[in-house]
Order: sequence, then C-alpha cells, then structure tokens
Amino acid sequence: MSDASLILSRRDLDFILYEWLEVERLTQRARFADHDRVSFDGVLDTCAQLAADMFAPHNRKADQNEPTFDGERVTMIPEVAEALAAFREAGLFSASQDYDLGGLQLPNVIERAGFAWFQAANVGTAAYPFLTIGAANLLKTHGTAAQVDAYVRPMLEGRFFGTMCLSEPQAGSSLGDIRTRAVAQADGSYRLFGSKMWISGGDHDLSETIVHMVLARMEGAPAGVKGISLFVVPKHLLDESGAPGERNDVVLAGLNHKMGYRGTTNTLLNFGEGRHAPGGQGGAVGWLVGAPHQGLAAMFHMMNEARIGVGAGAAALGYTGYLHALDYARGRPQGRPLSAKDPASPPVPIIQHADVRRMLLAQKAYAEGALGLNLYCARLTDDQTTAEDAAERDRAGRLLDMLTPIAKSWPSQWCLEGNSLAIQVLGGYGYTRDYPVEQFYRDNRLNPIHEGTHGIQGLDLLGRKAIMDGGSGLKLLGETVMATVARASGDGELAPYSEALAEAMGRIGAATATVWQDGDPERALANASTYLEAVGHAVLAWIWLEQALAAAGKTGDFYDGKRQAARYFFRWELPKIGPMLDLLVSKDDTTLAMQDRWF
Amino acid sequence: MSDASLILSRRDLDFILYEWLEVERLTQRARFADHDRVSFDGVLDTCAQLAADMFAPHNRKADQNEPTFDGERVTMIPEVAEALAAFREAGLFSASQDYDLGGLQLPNVIERAGFAWFQAANVGTAAYPFLTIGAANLLKTHGTAAQVDAYVRPMLEGRFFGTMCLSEPQAGSSLGDIRTRAVAQADGSYRLFGSKMWISGGDHDLSETIVHMVLARMEGAPAGVKGISLFVVPKHLLDESGAPGERNDVVLAGLNHKMGYRGTTNTLLNFGEGRHAPGGQGGAVGWLVGAPHQGLAAMFHMMNEARIGVGAGAAALGYTGYLHALDYARGRPQGRPLSAKDPASPPVPIIQHADVRRMLLAQKAYAEGALGLNLYCARLTDDQTTAEDAAERDRAGRLLDMLTPIAKSWPSQWCLEGNSLAIQVLGGYGYTRDYPVEQFYRDNRLNPIHEGTHGIQGLDLLGRKAIMDGGSGLKLLGETVMATVARASGDGELAPYSEALAEAMGRIGAATATVWQDGDPERALANASTYLEAVGHAVLAWIWLEQALAAAGKTGDFYDGKRQAARYFFRWELPKIGPMLDLLVSKDDTTLAMQDRWF
Repeated sequence: MSDASLILSRRDLDFILYEWLEVERLTQRARFADHDRVSFDGVLDTCAQLAADMFAPHNRKADQNEPTFDGERVTMIPEVAEALAAFREAGLFSASQDYDLGGLQLPNVIERAGFAWFQAANVGTAAYPFLTIGAANLLKTHGTAAQVDAYVRPMLEGRFFGTMCLSEPQAGSSLGDIRTRAVAQADGSYRLFGSKMWISGGDHDLSETIVHMVLARMEGAPAGVKGISLFVVPKHLLDESGAPGERNDVVLAGLNHKMGYRGTTNTLLNFGEGRHAPGGQGGAVGWLVGAPHQGLAAMFHMMNEARIGVGAGAAALGYTGYLHALDYARGRPQGRPLSAKDPASPPVPIIQHADVRRMLLAQKAYAEGALGLNLYCARLTDDQTTAEDAAERDRAGRLLDMLTPIAKSWPSQWCLEGNSLAIQVLGGYGYTRDYPVEQFYRDNRLNPIHEGTHGIQGLDLLGRKAIMDGGSGLKLLGETVMATVARASGDGELAPYSEALAEAMGRIGAATATVWQDGDPERALANASTYLEAVGHAVLAWIWLEQALAAAGKTGDFYDGKRQAARYFFRWELPKIGPMLDLLVSKDDTTLAMQDRWF
Repeated sequence: MSDASLILSRRDLDFILYEWLEVERLTQRARFADHDRVSFDGVLDTCAQLAADMFAPHNRKADQNEPTFDGERVTMIPEVAEALAAFREAGLFSASQDYDLGGLQLPNVIERAGFAWFQAANVGTAAYPFLTIGAANLLKTHGTAAQVDAYVRPMLEGRFFGTMCLSEPQAGSSLGDIRTRAVAQADGSYRLFGSKMWISGGDHDLSETIVHMVLARMEGAPAGVKGISLFVVPKHLLDESGAPGERNDVVLAGLNHKMGYRGTTNTLLNFGEGRHAPGGQGGAVGWLVGAPHQGLAAMFHMMNEARIGVGAGAAALGYTGYLHALDYARGRPQGRPLSAKDPASPPVPIIQHADVRRMLLAQKAYAEGALGLNLYCARLTDDQTTAEDAAERDRAGRLLDMLTPIAKSWPSQWCLEGNSLAIQVLGGYGYTRDYPVEQFYRDNRLNPIHEGTHGIQGLDLLGRKAIMDGGSGLKLLGETVMATVARASGDGELAPYSEALAEAMGRIGAATATVWQDGDPERALANASTYLEAVGHAVLAWIWLEQALAAAGKTGDFYDGKRQAARYFFRWELPKIGPMLDLLVSKDDTTLAMQDRWF
C-alpha cells in the first residue's frame, strides 16, 4: 500500500471541484439527479484508495520489468492485471456512462478527477482503461446499435479493452498519408491490410479481447484526409453468444521499447498479414463505423477527449512529483540559512532555502494550475452535453474546442518541467532509480509527443481554433477571461493580476490579427508553437486568477498557499509571454528564412 | 565503427578554434613552440577517429548493461576497458601536461576540444579519464614531489585512475558538514574513517589502482569549511617499486543506479570500515595534500576545472543530439508544405517544416554556443598560465572565475533542453530506445546536479563572483562584452544585436546593484538562480556575437548558418532575459515570503 498523500492532494481536489468549479450544482440537472456530494466523495475516496493500494505499489516494478513478447504472447508482471481487475470491480470503466449502458451517470468532471489518482499513481497501468474508455466513447457515438451491444458494453464492463489505431510507420502527424487498405466484402464487412505503429495497449492478455478502432482507406477513396474511414476490428471474432472466438488476422509485429511509460505495451500491429485466416480468408475482418471517408472527423471526437486526458495525465505526473519533492524537502537537512554564522549550528530542512522554495512553488503552480485547467475542461464537457439551455451548451463546446490544444500541451510542457525540478530538489538522489521522480520525468516526456505533438497543437490553435468562424473562439475565450478580470479588479491583492491578464489578452488578440494580416498561412503559422505557449501561459494565469478568487476572503494555510502560488504565477510566469508576443508581432521569419543547407 | 559526423562537427570545431579563438597564435608562446596547426589537427583527428571507432559503438550497450557489483568486484562490459586502453595508447591522459610529466604540452583548449569528441560519443566511458585528469591536476598542484612521482605520473600514463571524494550521504551541497575523520599517525600518514557518496569511478577494475582525492576533518579541526583537509587515499598501497600492493581499507559499499550516465560507476565508498587492515591496523591509509584545513580551497582548484568540463560535456551531448536530429529531419518524409494543395503530392522531409527548423535552429544555437563558450573558457585557462604579461594572465584568470558558473550551468540547462528538442524532432521514434537521443537526454539530466547544483552556481555568481573585489569581475566581464559590442556596432547586420547586448549588460549591472543595495544577503540571493540564467543568456548572446563577427564578410553555407543561428539567438533567446531582469530589479520576495506550512 502506498501513501495516498504522495499521489494527489485530496484537499486540493475538494477545493477545485467544490469551492471553485461548484460541481455540486451539476446535481440539479436531470442526468445527475441521483448524485450528491456524498456520492461524488465516495467515488473520489474509492479512486484514492485503489490508486494507493493497487496502482502505485507496482509503478516502479512495471517500469523496471517492461512487457516482453516471445513471438506468440505478451508477458507482463501480474500486478497490472490485478490492479485492472480491482478497477473493473469498482465499476470505474463506466463511471460517467448512461445507466442503460451499465454506468453510474457521474459527471465527466468527477470521473476525470477520480481518474487523475490512477494517472498519478501509475500512468502505465492507467493507460489501459484510459484507452478503453476513449475507444468505447468513440464507438458509442458513431457506431450502430449492434456495434454498441457487441463491443461497447463489454468494454464498459472492462471485459474487452480498446485501442486507437491511427499512425503508421511512415505516417504519424500526417494522417492523410496512411496506407492501410479496407477491402469491401459481399457480406458488408471489410478486410483490412496494413501496419499500425505506436499502438498503445495493442496487445496483451489483460482482457478477453481487444477492440481496435482503425483508420484505413477504402478502395477508390480520395487521397488525403478526405479518404479515411473508421473501422472496428476486434482481435477475436465474436461467436454467436458475443464471446471472443476465432482469432482475427491482427498480429503483434513487435513491442516498442520506450524511455518511460514502460508499463503500457506500445506496439507495431500488422493487419491482414495472413498469420490467421478468419473464415478461411486473408485479411483482418473489420466493420465500418459511421459514414465512408468520415473517419478522421469521427476519430477527432475521441482525440479531443484523449488530448484533455493526456494533459490531465501530465498534470497528474507533475502533481505527484511535486508532492514527492515537497516531502523530501521537508525531511532532508542540508545547509543553513545565510544569516546563520555558526557552522556548528544544526543544518535545516532544505525547504527553508529560498531556491528550494522557488522550485517547490513553481511545481505547485504548474501542477495545481494544470490540474485545474483540465478539470475546468472536463466541467465544460459536462456543460456541453447537459447544460440547460442550448446557448450554454454551444458556448461550452466552443470554449472547450479553443482550450483543448492548451489543455493538452501546457501540462505536457510545464509539468514535465516540474518533474525536472522535482529531480533537482532531490539532487543526486533524485537522479537515481531508488527514488520515483526520475520515472515521473521519463514517463511525462511522452506527453508532448503523442495525441498530436506540441507543434501540431500550435497549428491547431493558431491555424484553426483562433480564426475559425471569424475568430469567434478566440473572442469567446477573451470574454470568458475578461469576466474573471472584472470580478478580480475590485480586490486589492488581485487587481494588479487582473490588469496584467487583461493586457495579456489584449496583446494576444492584436498578435493574432497581426500574424494573419497578410493572409499568408506559411508566414502566419511559422511561429505557431510560440503562439501556443504565449496563449497557454495567459490561460494558466486566468486559471490561477480563478483559483485566487475562489480562495479570496478565506483564511488558513491552504488558502494562503493558493494566494502565494497565484502571486508566483503572475510575477514569475506570466511576464514570460512578453518576449513571445513581441516575436509574434514582429512576424519574425528566422526559422522560415533558415535554409536546409545552412545547417 | 560509428559515423563521426553524427558525434561533433569538425568543421565547426575548426571555425571555433582557428577562425574565432585563433588558437594558432598560442604557438608563439614558449610552452607551445613545438606545436602548429598540423599537430593540433592531428590530435583532433585522432580524437574524432577514436571516439567514432572505440567510444560511440558501445554507448547504448553500456547504458543497457550498467556495471554490477557482486559484493566483491565490479563487472562491466569489456568495451569500456578496450576504449580506455586505446585512449591511453594515444597518449591522451597527458595531452596538455608538461613534457617532464610525459605530456605533449598541448594547449588546454586543444585538449578540451579533443575531449569533447569522447564526451559526445560516450559520456559514461569518457568520465573515467575526465576524473583521472582532474584528480591528477589537483594532486600535481598541491601535492609534494614524492606524491607527484607516486601517483600523478601513473595517472597521466593512464595506469592509475582517480576520483574526487567530496560528498557524503548527509552532506552534498553543504560540504562544511562532512564527517569523514582523518586520524594522524606517528609516521606522518593518516587513517581515514567515513563514507563518501556519489563517487564517480569509485570502484572498477579498469586501472591498476584508483587514487581517491578525499576531503576529511582532522581531529580537533574547526567546524565548517575551515576545518576540511585534503588527502590522497589509494585503493592499494604502493610497494617499494611503486606498484599497487596491499589493499587499503577503502571498500565499495554499493553502486548507485541512475537514470542516465550509466556507464560510469557511481558509488558509495566506505573508508576505514575494517574489511582490510593495512599494516595490521584499521582505517584507510591516506596522506595530507597541501596545508591542514586548506582542503576545500585546493579542491576548488579542481572543481573549477571540473565545472567547465561538466559544461563541455553538456554541450557535447547537446551537439550530438542536434546532429542526430538534423540527420533524421533530412531523411524523414512527413507532411507537405502548407502551400501544397494536392494531398497526393509526395511528402517532404520534415526539415522543410518551419517548426522543425525552429527546433533544429534552437539546438544549433544552444550546442554551438555552449561549445563555443566552453572552448573560450579553455582558451582563458591557457592565457591564465601562458600569456606573456602578468596583467593579461591576471585578467584571464579573473574573467574565467566570472564565467565558470555560467560555463557549467548554461550548457547543463540549455543543451538538456536541446536534447529534449531532439527527441521532439524524432517524435515517437525519439522516445524509443532504438534511437540514441533519449539516452542523451537522460545522460545530460545529471549535469545540472553534479559539481555544484544549478542553485549553487547561482549563489556563486551573484553571492561571490559578481561582487568580490568591489565587483571587479562583473566589471571585467562588462568591459570584455562591450569590446565585442564596439567591434560589431559598425556592421549593418550586427549593429542591432550589439545594441541589444549593450542594453542587456547595462541592465545586468543595474540589477546587480539593486539586489545588493540593502546589504541583505538573504534578500539579495533569494532569486540568484534567475540572475544566473539572465547573465547566462547575455553571455551566450555575446558568444554568438563573437561567432558572428568571426563569420562576418565570409561567404558560404557554413557562415550563413552561423549568421542565422546568431540571428535566432538575438531574436528568440536574448529577449527572454527582459522579464528575468524585471523580476530581479523588483526585488521580488515571493519565494522568501512563502511559508513552509502553506505548501
């Protein structure tokens, strides 16, 4: 059993959920009418306990004993299956699902908060349900009733696991170039042929079967992204009772060996290689999901959810790293205050050194800010589907679209930096595998890569989200932020922050117009990553102003800590965007002008 | 055999050494009179070839098969010993040493440039000679003639290896708290008792014996740093012929298992544990080096050299990561230019995408800048000892003192960031252990920790270097930078850079005065890490202006690349110090005011 207080802070979750996001108000909506704070707390308590008892204890062991493949089957340490059995038995595969799918109809924001415990405790093991829930949501939304019965129900029961099969060895960020072929059969099914790369959870013996959601091209499909269709391809064909039977022609070609995230199998899968011949015929049997050639749009439904989940995972890793560093800094004596003149005086805990406090405060600001942002986004997903009036649902959806690239990229960048600071607080010990922080750092380094790289998020934000519908998304974000600014402007401590944030938002709006004023996408998007980072920092400043408002007028160490973290963010972090916006407004073309032969 | 062109760029080394630092002029000095460009080139060629043939090929294998300890002896892959034998046979242990110590009397700057090949190819294996040369230089400077004959000569022949034994399990950054005791014996020797932690190269079978340079306290020594003495403690006592004989009572208590840098044994050593009893008596036999209680000052002689070497190692890792990312980006097709409308058009190499060029240009600016700074510092060590007039020697020494914390910390921070960008360029592939960039990142993460953490370097710069002797060090740095500014101010392309740099130096001077104006060290030093980072970025801007001047008026892709990297640094990097200096000038006390109980 591990110490839950080193995984996440329940006190902070309560603050974010109940004091800031006011999630109890959700129980006034019909969908959540059976719930109250007691049932929410019960779920959070269960998650905290399961994470501490079943997930955290094997986190290092899974890292040091990664899954192996003998050409026939994947072997991994037994603790993974045990943890997932406990997760399944607690009903957590379907926590937010409809009652008629066997779910508990919990709000997404509660499900997400509960899930953060597992991501912080053991991101490698938590990835299996994360992927399964995402695949189930995708198929539930776009599949037929029969597909839902055949696959989604067993997935939400935790009997079948799921994957997303997008990338291929030659096509990662450029999905328009995928080559996997889907050949139509007389019975309405398809046979798939091709290779899929980087498939997390692509093979294992943890579930009765694995349901792959696969992007492929039908014969004669248009080139590029407009010719991609979505298929459901199970590892085993289901028999008449719905149980996994004959082996489908999806085979594991090999495991990828990663720097971190080692507990999750990451695979190269071959479809239609011919090792198996279902029904006596080659090709992996699959069924179309949704309309032909509309696969990418459908998959994006899942990717947006996955991107917020990736950000939440990054936040969770940053959070647990922070808690471990804090625990170490309180207990490690080393050195003396600069004012101490007697070298024989006893050393003090390193938390008393200003530079260590700087590193802890930065981690706190990154982790609590990132978790706050991702739970805010989860709250928006609830509003998007359950808010009472249509305008509010629409507003939530558009704000969520705008925030998604930031909710994915900001935690991936800054909570990774937080994990680096955690190593630094522990010094030499932090660099050893005897302490967990180096694993958090290795695990978290995946997050700026998968589910759309950092650069892809920048293109999404500046090239789509900020300008679509005449810039209405950016305008909506600005209005939302300015509403917070208005609430804070009367508070003596917060007024300077609100001024700084208002100025930042004004500068972002101007920078957006400036980079696009020539109508040249290549020039406008050359510095899209910088735009992403500038807007990201402004959004996090807003999240901190929101948290500071939720703490305003309240007394006690916890609230003083929130105020100090907000102060840190506004004094140390937000000013970093000044040079970024200067660069954007200058329409700097240094990278564009760089010639390949000059490298 | 590995590809040398992926380890370092010989073209760039030639530029830095011959076109910028004008190292051929050193051959006019008596000490280097036997040398010329041919002999310098010969050394660089040898290093490049040995690094490619003997060091790089086992870099990954050493990472994946770290040394083991069975309680009796350390076992490691045989390639390490083979590489070090080749290094020894090439005479590289003594490349810069006096002829009468068997050396070649090469300039330090050439030795350092040559050594960078080994650090880039395999930092784990390169650490053994790095530590040995450092220990030999320490003992050579402070030891007796007999100690030089007994230990230094075999070390410079590569027969004995060396270590630095400073830290203890309870005392890392706070060396005043070390507890290892040295008990005087009637014969003038000492017996040492205590434990030393994080000792790189602390045990192995790679050399005939190991010479430990150990900090310890004599009985009755004053408390704190004023009571620390330096001892030489060999693993084996030498017999009358000078050969290692009886085992001394220094034993390996255990190996540390690190995130990276795995090829270098890192150890906990016990002195005087009693497992061996040299001469029938307990305690590790050692001999005083230099004067009693002056050990820390002596050790700092070696630490300054080690700090520049750590920075050079960080630069080398950043450099090889950059070259690998560049090679991948040239060869990996993915996506199309934003202007391409036909999705069936062939994909382009990713180097053609602006964001990939940004990541490559940043890596180039970090790696070439950092290597340039560290070779500039190595050139200063030559001037410090061989410049013709005393004033010039003094000036070089003072400038070197000022630059040392930056030469250590800046590459450790930014070339680590460069390695992260290299992973990002390779995407999912970069995150796997099938490609070398993730190892560079893990290896490089040590550098902000050892040989004085990032925070310690900040205290050294702002608390000592910038203010000692009435601020003469900072003044000297300012004068040196302003001389470059003056040279660049007449150049149309460089004039804006020189203005920006002059402004930055002015602001740094003002910030230094402001933070110290109250005379309160605790307040002044609270943000010392930020000061270190601001001065560091300004120093690197200066290094880039120097390199741009060395390229000025020259035509060709190589020089265009230098100009573009300088432009990148001035447009993208130097402006980052604006908010840092604002923070310093505001005397922000956010971290000081943070209370422990608020976390």
